[in-house]
Amino acid sequence: MYILQKRIEEEGKVLNDDVLKVDMFINHQIDVALLNELGLEYKRRFEGYEITKILTIEASGIAVACITAQYFSVPVVFAKKHESRNMDSSVYQSEVYSFTKEKIYNIRVSKEFILPNDKILIIDDFLANGRAILGLMDIIEQAGASLTGVGVVIEKGFQEGGNKLREAGVKLESLAIIDSMKNGNLKFR
Amino acid sequence: MYILQKRIEEEGKVLNDDVLKVDMFINHQIDVALLNELGLEYKRRFEGYEITKILTIEASGIAVACITAQYFSVPVVFAKKHESRNMDSSVYQSEVYSFTKEKIYNIRVSKEFILPNDKILIIDDFLANGRAILGLMDIIEQAGASLTGVGVVIEKGFQEGGNKLREAGVKLESLAIIDSMKNGNLKFR
Repeated sequence: MYILQKRIEEEGKVLNDDVLKVDMFINHQIDVALLNELGLEYKRRFEGYEITKILTIEASGIAVACITAQYFSVPVVFAKKHESRNMDSSVYQSEVYSFTKEKIYNIRVSKEFILPNDKILIIDDFLANGRAILGLMDIIEQAGASLTGVGVVIEKGFQEGGNKLREAGVKLESLAIIDSMKNGNLKFR
Repeated sequence: MYILQKRIEEEGKVLNDDVLKVDMFINHQIDVALLNELGLEYKRRFEGYEITKILTIEASGIAVACITAQYFSVPVVFAKKHESRNMDSSVYQSEVYSFTKEKIYNIRVSKEFILPNDKILIIDDFLANGRAILGLMDIIEQAGASLTGVGVVIEKGFQEGGNKLREAGVKLESLAIIDSMKNGNLKFR
């Protein structure tokens, strides 16, 4: 997607061969007008597919998911990463290993919010090794719901997540795929 | 605000005299259509005020802030609560005591994203004791920026935050104010 790729080139910061920061428009400051373009693009790419809910994960997935949900007229559900005193005890949960934080954490979704007849679009900001998205897919399976597809904003094509999902037959739509960031040079697919 | 009050009455869960769960439409599952009504209401209440940025705090503030930002055509910045390996070292930070989690945490905003000429609208889902919002105000002050006002979705009027802010001369707009939840009975102001 051209305008996204341009923004990544202009404002993204390649910290090393693995880490790209897009704090300027997605992950810390959020350009809501750009997110609307992304939402519209997801709408085009999932045209004709049945979607009853968008599932994402806190925190930075929430913005893209909510803006996108406006184009599908469906609610968003976000999986929680952090313990909360007020969380329901009746939850689906899955373990996710985070390479960024170097630890395992649990993601949780209340059983009330994913039902067996739900057709779910997963939306997230980044896809790298795919652990977070596999965790969300695990939760969808536990609930007996269906996965319609996965939409990510930026896929790190040099990490395994994207290929793993495609090989599993998942309809994966990545709005920008970066094949290499070696020596600070961004190469898009 | 009538439709919000109605939703709280119909779908909110009063867990005890202090805790109201609105997981069904704001804090876990998100009704984006309702959030659009809230965003439009903030637009009305802050009509004519100068706003260059909306500031919120992860995670559940992000949804309301982003949908609202569409009505003001400004970016959103969200303060981070959790350590991240990729966070800038150059940040404004403030300590916030959380009564829900019973601990002190740091909130952080990169110095790049709040500038001295910014006029800021703080948006958050809940206002109770006001600690999180006072932390955000502290960060705005550190940056030398101006606070235009504060918009919260639900104010617990029986806790001190709202009065503290009003006494400090802050333009506070709470879309629903709950004066009591004793014995499970919601009383709105």
